[in-house]
Amino acid sequence: MIFKDCVAYLTQKIKEGLDKLDDCVINEMVESFFECDKMFIYGVGRSGLASKGFAMRLMHLGFKIYVMGETVSPPVNEGDLVILVSGSGRTNSVVKIAQLSKEVRAKIVVITTEKNSPLADLGDLTIALDVQKEKDPRLAPLGTLFEDGALIFFDCIISELLDRMGENEDRMTARHASLE
Amino acid sequence: MIFKDCVAYLTQKIKEGLDKLDDCVINEMVESFFECDKMFIYGVGRSGLASKGFAMRLMHLGFKIYVMGETVSPPVNEGDLVILVSGSGRTNSVVKIAQLSKEVRAKIVVITTEKNSPLADLGDLTIALDVQKEKDPRLAPLGTLFEDGALIFFDCIISELLDRMGENEDRMTARHASLE
Amino acid sequence: MIFKDCVAYLTQKIKEGLDKLDDCVINEMVESFFECDKMFIYGVGRSGLASKGFAMRLMHLGFKIYVMGETVSPPVNEGDLVILVSGSGRTNSVVKIAQLSKEVRAKIVVITTEKNSPLADLGDLTIALDVQKEKDPRLAPLGTLFEDGALIFFDCIISELLDRMGENEDRMTARHASLE
Amino acid sequence: MIFKDCVAYLTQKIKEGLDKLDDCVINEMVESFFECDKMFIYGVGRSGLASKGFAMRLMHLGFKIYVMGETVSPPVNEGDLVILVSGSGRTNSVVKIAQLSKEVRAKIVVITTEKNSPLADLGDLTIALDVQKEKDPRLAPLGTLFEDGALIFFDCIISELLDRMGENEDRMTARHASLE
Repeated sequence: MIFKDCVAYLTQKIKEGLDKLDDCVINEMVESFFECDKMFIYGVGRSGLASKGFAMRLMHLGFKIYVMGETVSPPVNEGDLVILVSGSGRTNSVVKIAQLSKEVRAKIVVITTEKNSPLADLGDLTIALDVQKEKDPRLAPLGTLFEDGALIFFDCIISELLDRMGENEDRMTARHASLE
Repeated sequence: MIFKDCVAYLTQKIKEGLDKLDDCVINEMVESFFECDKMFIYGVGRSGLASKGFAMRLMHLGFKIYVMGETVSPPVNEGDLVILVSGSGRTNSVVKIAQLSKEVRAKIVVITTEKNSPLADLGDLTIALDVQKEKDPRLAPLGTLFEDGALIFFDCIISELLDRMGENEDRMTARHASLE
Repeated sequence: MIFKDCVAYLTQKIKEGLDKLDDCVINEMVESFFECDKMFIYGVGRSGLASKGFAMRLMHLGFKIYVMGETVSPPVNEGDLVILVSGSGRTNSVVKIAQLSKEVRAKIVVITTEKNSPLADLGDLTIALDVQKEKDPRLAPLGTLFEDGALIFFDCIISELLDRMGENEDRMTARHASLE
Repeated sequence: MIFKDCVAYLTQKIKEGLDKLDDCVINEMVESFFECDKMFIYGVGRSGLASKGFAMRLMHLGFKIYVMGETVSPPVNEGDLVILVSGSGRTNSVVKIAQLSKEVRAKIVVITTEKNSPLADLGDLTIALDVQKEKDPRLAPLGTLFEDGALIFFDCIISELLDRMGENEDRMTARHASLE
């Protein structure tokens, strides 16, 4: 049974990859959240799921955040922040949204693994998570390490925001949807 | 900056929690996937996102899997497997779906943190991830450890299935949606 | 070929059904939109799709509207308006959300075909669309007339709101998501 | 109150527009459904909602249909049918998916209002619903007539299919998701 080897492998690779991130870059991302009118996030497939998980927590912290493509998302304007998530940095619709966001002069934050990609080039701030390199395809098929790593990355950004804002769990619970 | 403390904390807590799982339980879950007609998965909020991430990979492995509530999901019948995901084991709609699944005699697998909950009681197989206990609410607010732990848990189940089925990344890529 | 018979049948049945609605009821629904803090809407299956179509247009008119279950939906509180859509008035999750909305003292508007149903009983305002009676199952299988009728109903409410608010298409376009 | 004027206007415009459709085109669309391996549908915003409503009913009739972008949608291959829905025929992601579908040699059916548009040009079969011309923006703002007209159009295609296949409501109910 390789289940437990896989637990050790994924958690270790994610830890190592995220540990390499530069504190200045984390700081720049966090600061940008306080300097925008509203935020948008978008990703496709499992990257999109990690994005939505981040959006929920940002909402629990009181941020004005929308998931592109959901029913009530407004248009993007200058002064907005657009967070785009794609491991390859080449997902068609994500690159297209980056181009259109640039045209309306929104600020773009890119989360990817590929520093050299069309999406990375379009980011005002591009954060490359170094988690996929030399991976074992049996323990982490396809983009698994990026997608799981991105979710952990986003949740650590949430804790960083929570700390800086003096927020707490009780106040987040009060902003949590409760009727489903 | 608490970002890196948080990376260490989340990966360590998830590793420790999943390490405690009994191999027999993992084996029973994995075996049940080969003994059903088709599979369904359901969860609300961030548990729902982890569920969808699992469903995508199961589809990449060739399983017949549906997310309850999505457009083309068929009805549940006897012989089907229903995977229900809720940290608290008390989410209204998840408990209701467990009851209705039981009525049509589908097999129920519950993923939760609470062994003593209405949902846990309804599972033919209930797997409690021990990741939330004595957690630090500043580093892991609300259900973060369960939701992130569930995603890692699901991806390790995927590797276990991949290994047993003799599947590989190339064949999974061929089943991956490619037009977005 | 029955295609054109079906066009005539559906448009005629929807027109007749919606014509029977009492102007006072329409007025009460429209007025309630101006007297709430924020709005929520929920429905399952094709009723859910009509609900989302309504939510988009309400957003284009400048209302604060959320679809329950979507990523960034906040909790429901006293002072909020909850619009629930179910042809049968018996859909499990919709009835449950009505009960929970009542508990937090939100105002409930029910759109249904069944005046005598658990959901109808829970509405502060219940609007029964009389479109399904004595229907031809070959030209309108299952809840087709309710679901299509609800979409037309909602779009006529939008025109009523647009008229009363002095809104226009240009201003609505400016609030329309534009990057996809 | 303009509510009832709007009911008359929308139902009349939709009826007139759909009546103009050539029976041969309807027939070609319906026939194509029986000649493909599996079907996909995609649209953005309210066009996407009408698409999902169609997908549900196609599933109730027993067709193998997927909504692009949903969790369990497989890749598109030669032999598949791709239905693309956009009033303007210019929605970015819809045009892109048409191009990529063409590359893998899937058959493309386009539902639009614009015969002269990038999307229309890419259709193996393009059906232009003539419902938006000279519309009153107060009674039908933005793409309302196309979106509502497309839903009615799709439901009339469903009746046409139901009739040709000798299907009935009872068998459709048995394929209807039932646990929510």
